[in-house]
Amino acid sequence: MCEEKRQSIMDIDTVSLDDENSQIIIIDQTLLPYETKTIRLTTQNQIWEAIYRLQVRGAPAIGVTAGFGLYLAAKEIAARTDTYDAFYAEFVKAKDYLDSSRPTAVNLSWALNQLDKVCKKNQGRSIPEIVGALHKEAVRIQEEDIWACHKLGEYGLSLVKPGDGLLTHCNAGKLAATRYGMATAPMYLGQERGYNFRVYCDETRPVLQGARLTAMELMDSGIDTTVICDNMSASVMKAGLVNAVFVGCDRVAANGDTANKIGTSVVAAVAKYYHVPMYICAPTSTIDMQTATGDEIRIEQRPGSEVTEMWYEKRMAPEGVKVYNPAFDVTDHELITAIVTEYGIAYPPYTESLKKIMEIKAEAMKEA
Amino acid sequence: MCEEKRQSIMDIDTVSLDDENSQIIIIDQTLLPYETKTIRLTTQNQIWEAIYRLQVRGAPAIGVTAGFGLYLAAKEIAARTDTYDAFYAEFVKAKDYLDSSRPTAVNLSWALNQLDKVCKKNQGRSIPEIVGALHKEAVRIQEEDIWACHKLGEYGLSLVKPGDGLLTHCNAGKLAATRYGMATAPMYLGQERGYNFRVYCDETRPVLQGARLTAMELMDSGIDTTVICDNMSASVMKAGLVNAVFVGCDRVAANGDTANKIGTSVVAAVAKYYHVPMYICAPTSTIDMQTATGDEIRIEQRPGSEVTEMWYEKRMAPEGVKVYNPAFDVTDHELITAIVTEYGIAYPPYTESLKKIMEIKAEAMKEA
Repeated sequence: MCEEKRQSIMDIDTVSLDDENSQIIIIDQTLLPYETKTIRLTTQNQIWEAIYRLQVRGAPAIGVTAGFGLYLAAKEIAARTDTYDAFYAEFVKAKDYLDSSRPTAVNLSWALNQLDKVCKKNQGRSIPEIVGALHKEAVRIQEEDIWACHKLGEYGLSLVKPGDGLLTHCNAGKLAATRYGMATAPMYLGQERGYNFRVYCDETRPVLQGARLTAMELMDSGIDTTVICDNMSASVMKAGLVNAVFVGCDRVAANGDTANKIGTSVVAAVAKYYHVPMYICAPTSTIDMQTATGDEIRIEQRPGSEVTEMWYEKRMAPEGVKVYNPAFDVTDHELITAIVTEYGIAYPPYTESLKKIMEIKAEAMKEA
Repeated sequence: MCEEKRQSIMDIDTVSLDDENSQIIIIDQTLLPYETKTIRLTTQNQIWEAIYRLQVRGAPAIGVTAGFGLYLAAKEIAARTDTYDAFYAEFVKAKDYLDSSRPTAVNLSWALNQLDKVCKKNQGRSIPEIVGALHKEAVRIQEEDIWACHKLGEYGLSLVKPGDGLLTHCNAGKLAATRYGMATAPMYLGQERGYNFRVYCDETRPVLQGARLTAMELMDSGIDTTVICDNMSASVMKAGLVNAVFVGCDRVAANGDTANKIGTSVVAAVAKYYHVPMYICAPTSTIDMQTATGDEIRIEQRPGSEVTEMWYEKRMAPEGVKVYNPAFDVTDHELITAIVTEYGIAYPPYTESLKKIMEIKAEAMKEA
């Protein structure tokens, strides 16, 4: 029998624009790990659905997709509007529509707002020129993400040593971003440098991004990868198998509270008890200084059927039972050892250190 | 269309002996919640398989099944042996065989040893008389379990108040025991008395006993029941929805460390962080004073396919990935607020309080 070798997931772009700049190409992540298939998105409705249905997910990847998506919308609107006012009115509608696809990640609205700023700044120019500027901005958002993940990975790597056991939750990997990912960035850089990490992946119920996505990425990169159920984190930590936790992040409040994939705050409480450092990998695009504390972060509630039926042959809880299915939770800043960004590592007290990080960023942006 | 009402799971015995005392009848729990089916076990191999394959599970229910199982073995051996020595040699073989089905729960070997003691004590009597005594002992184990669960429930109920939100993990319910269950005993007694508890059931990966079994039991009893994924415990506790955690137990060490269903120690660490009391419901049959600390408890490792494939339409982690799948974990005694038994509530320091509980029990046994 001829055995076909599966293509490495690391060789396929998570999100990209096609050569004609008319379609977004994404890996359909709901089909992983059993089918690696890319799909093309053209209409706003397709893009909204792809984000809502988690075909593309992860805060940075959502941001990049939204950027490309709003650019495609602008192109389409440009073809049927003459004045800036008419163009901009439609542009804002498209922006608000895309913004409604997922509420928790700040990158989504951040990316859309970046394009909005570009639009306003170029008000005096022709509509085709504005569309050109929007394209440039959307591409810049993706390039910045690649750069930020790499940089963040370097800072993260400085916190661990060769041979360490690492634990991660959900997928804050290449599939959630581009190239290095966030929580995975120190792992991939370590792998390039012979660190021989052992990585434990929480399977991450209900949607199983850890088992389906992170485990696949890490294995395809040759990293020693072990899948565990979310309720086994204490077991591996108690056994001394974990030296550090790296997780991704959807929003960081000014006080260092973070909104992350549901279950992250469980890992954080367990890590605290077993004295394992808890590192949040957060590109500065996820830092939201306008949000004072985690209490202000709106948490997306998703359908209960994700828990009781989605992945199963038969439903796995009795008919009619209530289900509570928040997509994220908030991790108290006091459970977080450090927040790793592309502009450095923030330690407590976060009210000060995050401000400092944002100042460094503002300085760097000014110079650029 | 005629809608058929499903029979309440509360109306079917978890484990029983048939009227001819020749078969064990159990609910096949691997089929729940989508099919309620009882199966009959006759041979030692069938009984071993039913325990190993989790068709019957939960420390007390395993103990009861093992008791009935060894009695059935004794009956069969009696039919083909003449002398006590020949009978007893075969009896010990059957005992060791059943004992090998699951390693962590102490009730299994405890129940088998109870029958062994009866066997030895009756050495002078005829083999049919010995078999009769074994039958009596097996029935007594079940009756004691019913009594103990009820009693334990009363003590547990004294720790909470009407309207409380309770969280439980796995199934330490009627399906894990008889009638009231362990962790569920305070809930059922409360329900009888109008306490109106709200109960959150951890789904309990990988085998989903919480979603499949506990949620079904509680709903069938009319209790306000909500299923959550294991990684949502912090979310409900942070939201102030949980006033107490009640969980079952497979083995209690002399220092109060407890072996419980995998993930219990995660709940315990989270509960500690959010100042929610953590109550372990442990019939004294699970207390093992011969085991000094949790470090000495052997933890059963089960096949990785339980995590990656068992319940899914397609496998949910990449082919060839490593899986770590311990069936239990050990909860440090310092994470436990109290251990609730049928002879009272043990508080820290457990080395003293558990000894006291066992003394009260010994006293009660002497009087009986």
